[in-house]
Amino acid sequence: MTSVSIVGGSGYGGGELLRLLLGHPHVELEQATSRTHLGEYVYQVHPNLRKRTQLKFSDPSALEPVDVLFLAQPHGQAQHHIDNYASLAGKIIDLAADFRLHSPADYTKWYGEPHAAPAWLDKFVYGLPELHRAEIASANYVSGVGCNATASNLALLPLVRAGLIDSAQPVIIEIKVGSSESGAEGNSGSLHAERANVIRTFSAFGHRHTAEVIQELGLKDVSLTMTAVDLVRGVLATAHAHVRPGVANKDLWKAYRAVANENPFIRVVKEQRGIYRVPEPKILSGSNYADLGFELDESTGHIVAICAIDNLMKGASGTAVQCMNLMLGLDETTGLEFAGLHPI
Amino acid sequence: MTSVSIVGGSGYGGGELLRLLLGHPHVELEQATSRTHLGEYVYQVHPNLRKRTQLKFSDPSALEPVDVLFLAQPHGQAQHHIDNYASLAGKIIDLAADFRLHSPADYTKWYGEPHAAPAWLDKFVYGLPELHRAEIASANYVSGVGCNATASNLALLPLVRAGLIDSAQPVIIEIKVGSSESGAEGNSGSLHAERANVIRTFSAFGHRHTAEVIQELGLKDVSLTMTAVDLVRGVLATAHAHVRPGVANKDLWKAYRAVANENPFIRVVKEQRGIYRVPEPKILSGSNYADLGFELDESTGHIVAICAIDNLMKGASGTAVQCMNLMLGLDETTGLEFAGLHPI
Amino acid sequence: MTSVSIVGGSGYGGGELLRLLLGHPHVELEQATSRTHLGEYVYQVHPNLRKRTQLKFSDPSALEPVDVLFLAQPHGQAQHHIDNYASLAGKIIDLAADFRLHSPADYTKWYGEPHAAPAWLDKFVYGLPELHRAEIASANYVSGVGCNATASNLALLPLVRAGLIDSAQPVIIEIKVGSSESGAEGNSGSLHAERANVIRTFSAFGHRHTAEVIQELGLKDVSLTMTAVDLVRGVLATAHAHVRPGVANKDLWKAYRAVANENPFIRVVKEQRGIYRVPEPKILSGSNYADLGFELDESTGHIVAICAIDNLMKGASGTAVQCMNLMLGLDETTGLEFAGLHPI
Amino acid sequence: MTSVSIVGGSGYGGGELLRLLLGHPHVELEQATSRTHLGEYVYQVHPNLRKRTQLKFSDPSALEPVDVLFLAQPHGQAQHHIDNYASLAGKIIDLAADFRLHSPADYTKWYGEPHAAPAWLDKFVYGLPELHRAEIASANYVSGVGCNATASNLALLPLVRAGLIDSAQPVIIEIKVGSSESGAEGNSGSLHAERANVIRTFSAFGHRHTAEVIQELGLKDVSLTMTAVDLVRGVLATAHAHVRPGVANKDLWKAYRAVANENPFIRVVKEQRGIYRVPEPKILSGSNYADLGFELDESTGHIVAICAIDNLMKGASGTAVQCMNLMLGLDETTGLEFAGLHPI
Repeated sequence: MTSVSIVGGSGYGGGELLRLLLGHPHVELEQATSRTHLGEYVYQVHPNLRKRTQLKFSDPSALEPVDVLFLAQPHGQAQHHIDNYASLAGKIIDLAADFRLHSPADYTKWYGEPHAAPAWLDKFVYGLPELHRAEIASANYVSGVGCNATASNLALLPLVRAGLIDSAQPVIIEIKVGSSESGAEGNSGSLHAERANVIRTFSAFGHRHTAEVIQELGLKDVSLTMTAVDLVRGVLATAHAHVRPGVANKDLWKAYRAVANENPFIRVVKEQRGIYRVPEPKILSGSNYADLGFELDESTGHIVAICAIDNLMKGASGTAVQCMNLMLGLDETTGLEFAGLHPI
Repeated sequence: MTSVSIVGGSGYGGGELLRLLLGHPHVELEQATSRTHLGEYVYQVHPNLRKRTQLKFSDPSALEPVDVLFLAQPHGQAQHHIDNYASLAGKIIDLAADFRLHSPADYTKWYGEPHAAPAWLDKFVYGLPELHRAEIASANYVSGVGCNATASNLALLPLVRAGLIDSAQPVIIEIKVGSSESGAEGNSGSLHAERANVIRTFSAFGHRHTAEVIQELGLKDVSLTMTAVDLVRGVLATAHAHVRPGVANKDLWKAYRAVANENPFIRVVKEQRGIYRVPEPKILSGSNYADLGFELDESTGHIVAICAIDNLMKGASGTAVQCMNLMLGLDETTGLEFAGLHPI
Repeated sequence: MTSVSIVGGSGYGGGELLRLLLGHPHVELEQATSRTHLGEYVYQVHPNLRKRTQLKFSDPSALEPVDVLFLAQPHGQAQHHIDNYASLAGKIIDLAADFRLHSPADYTKWYGEPHAAPAWLDKFVYGLPELHRAEIASANYVSGVGCNATASNLALLPLVRAGLIDSAQPVIIEIKVGSSESGAEGNSGSLHAERANVIRTFSAFGHRHTAEVIQELGLKDVSLTMTAVDLVRGVLATAHAHVRPGVANKDLWKAYRAVANENPFIRVVKEQRGIYRVPEPKILSGSNYADLGFELDESTGHIVAICAIDNLMKGASGTAVQCMNLMLGLDETTGLEFAGLHPI
Repeated sequence: MTSVSIVGGSGYGGGELLRLLLGHPHVELEQATSRTHLGEYVYQVHPNLRKRTQLKFSDPSALEPVDVLFLAQPHGQAQHHIDNYASLAGKIIDLAADFRLHSPADYTKWYGEPHAAPAWLDKFVYGLPELHRAEIASANYVSGVGCNATASNLALLPLVRAGLIDSAQPVIIEIKVGSSESGAEGNSGSLHAERANVIRTFSAFGHRHTAEVIQELGLKDVSLTMTAVDLVRGVLATAHAHVRPGVANKDLWKAYRAVANENPFIRVVKEQRGIYRVPEPKILSGSNYADLGFELDESTGHIVAICAIDNLMKGASGTAVQCMNLMLGLDETTGLEFAGLHPI
């Protein structure tokens, strides 16, 4: 058994990690910290875990050495304590945005202030197995992924991998998100009476996750436009790009199938009948799948590439556990077998 | 008092018309037809109208002459009976798609079959007052508007009117819609258990309302991508375009304010604080407003132009009543005063 | 024109009052106060009012004399300033719970502390026109009504009025409520991610509105059990009682129709066909109607009496405006004509 | 490995069974039948199962012998084919209502027509392990459970088991349900635009599941009042009863803890702090837990007993698999480990 602990267990990402690690057959969960809920039972904050664990939230200052340490704090905290964490665990997986970008300059540009531990940026591998499986398997430090970046990167991955995209044209990614993205703290706009029934394009440009799409896919002109919709879990990225001249539907099928074949959590959804013809986050709650689809307008080369994920699973904690499995030499899908529900 | 009747009163557009006309100070509602609900009280189908009217649905074959006849049938029916309707009323307002396109060839292209009464196409004015106020005021035959087309046309109207748009670049319109767009009949995907919690990009290209955007705005390369979200009423169009070189925020403000000043139902929403900084359909239920907003990336000229409407009001029945007001020489806003609710 | 002002205009009840009073043909809105949003435009907080008013929130200390003053503050504030308010306006309508109960002892029992201005309790008439129309018409001080109390009182009113209820048996009222009941401040459980999809019986016994049901209906053994459901606006009260021996359906119909005939905002909903056979808050958003229904088990005398309202309208601001109309000698329904929407 | 097949796999109960059986370590799924979706891939109807199975729906007439046969058809079909099914499998678990009631007279009374195979009624054990664990373990034929009956029976089980209830007083059970209860076929009221945002008390008395509460708990005067709310999965039963004189909170705690200790899927939820203080179906989606809570008014003896379940899991397919585990001598919780999600 591998010993693991979680720093920051009371947030939504931390709660999902707790659920996954408590059900994981090869790990032993030692501690989960929370300042706000110190001393409370984990199940009082995450009520789905009642009768699953008697663990109480502990003080971050009382962390003990473990094999793998997960960091699930709000953004901007881990970078201030990374040396300490590294003294406690040989392997660290951070879910926040602290160690996703490799360039200190990029970090400053997108996050508005210099990084507190710039020397650590290069030590972390970007934690998306579909992009960096081999590196993750041999890494000690793995970053988290932005949920919106993940939906975007996976939507476009088959096109980029197969060189089908026309990189001279702008890539416009329209992202629709549920309320759990705002976290357990929320803000005034997160109140149910204000957040229910919304279609709210809250950010037209400049979302921080854009930096992860630029870094990982090597695209130049990319924008993420964010729209909040009435849903708790789920992200849908609808990416608009143009394919290179001559690219046809058969090339696209080949590219998408290749990515789905190489990756256990990637599925292609493109049906001619039934209700569920395209990728939808609705059926992915609790699942680690990323469902991909595409539609090509052959007359213009305009392609709509779609990716649906559960932001707390494939967009955060599920991918983090998938990385841990790779780092420990386990089957990549261990503990991530839940198929999702229909209907829901 | 002006006498009015409705052909097809049991659908959602018909129900909204009934509500508006029953509350209108200058009209007398004579008949509302429905084959499915023949003989039933109107309030048994539209329960909000209980204690407002004792009208029962009548047979379409028993229609009597009136001053203004509203056609609110499913698409494709009105064109087969238009001569008969014209014999019953001097003024006709159609809510369906039968008379929106002026060119028979365009009709065939987008609707997949030849029009049954092509000679009538030119007699109808496209019924969006923000585009054709004067023509509507002197017209006898006015078409309905597509709800998605209306959100698109109004989102881009200030840019097109002021000549700010770079028409060499594609215009990509991302539209998010509620379930009332599917109508009172629905389909297998409209069942609550399947339709709740969705983010479903059900049409990437080729939506029929695209034809109305092309016809009315004169743009060449336009696509509408449709995504269903969990909401009953409302459409949000998020349009991606590029402005001509040199266009700055002040030019945009000027263009948007001009359109808002000329049109009583257009508002510009672009706040720096608060929860409601951008246009949102959430607060427009029952209101005839179209809320417009925009965001410019000055480094690339990429503009995100937004329009929110209630699809059953500004996107259908509200605009139809607005047209009637113009045709009768009344104040454009008569009977359309409801402000919408907050919260909802 | 009657001059009116609102103390506490930034909450949900205050926003609804603003909407109603701005659209009222016989009043002139002078001021709306808010400490939190001082100096902001009213439409920045209540975005439905954009283009309807250029009013800004003013300081409560800068209130000027008016004909009618509405108090829409959180509970517990008005009683500390009532003398001051009375010096500013001859007629006062309070929406909060401060002046609903007549007995200081009852107030202390249900609110947990003594009333700050007990001498004022007797000067206020309980502001539900269906119970106290004549008194309200001649009153200077009228209290608000609890939304849950209103749904309960109106559900049972026909039975109590006609003496059909068996008062020896307990009356169990199951109330389901939307999130706007929690107010614009909310609490940790009001965050969308925690409040969406709930069926949460948050209070089994002891809800403060129980006191208003006991006071107004004269029942002894009454309990209100509160369940939060996923909706923004709306309350449904499903009341379980027993009728006196021998009471049959025809007696009930007579009792319900009598109440509906005497009260312009009461409707009886009891259909044999169609989708909307029973009272539902869904179609009442923005409307001042209270829809009543009932079902009797003749074998046991168990009656289920139902009332649906919009908690911000008939349950708060709508009823307050209805009271103002009565106090001013206007038609009771003035400014309250909105019929509600279908579908929504 | 035990071979299993499902008759009627395209409905919601059948889909949930498919998910559970495909993930079950000790069974091999052989066939799933569907007339409507004959020849389609299972994942085209239940999209969560994509990449989990290549099974296609087969013809019911082509069923082959298996160890355990699950019947998941709409009510009223299984009783016409039970002899045939019994010839194919030694063990049968029916999810429908065909074999829940033991008395042919009761069946006729509640279902409105005589049973087609009354001799079979006595051969089936009522399939709720919390009531009949030992009998189920040695049974060959086990019935399904009504989801509303299950929520009711489990809410009251501790009180009945411990003899705390005053059976002279009526028991009033208020049940709130999600839309998946209506099944994959739905009805006109199930259309999203009509079913969203509802609080609809669609049945005051006479729901068929009442018969299962009477039969299993031995109570005389029980009523189930059904209210539809805006949720896909989930049932909450809020039961109002009276305890015998002298029963206090400590007696109740003892009774509830005893039931929770004896049953792996029963949890008591009664917290003094946090958001989740009471049982809620929200966090039970996909889980087999039944969460119980209670609140006592000591002054009147009125007790509110609450049970939350996922209607498709503990209320249908989860319990069916739990029964299968017992019948096969497996650990009761095998294949039912999913903890549910927070938030959702």
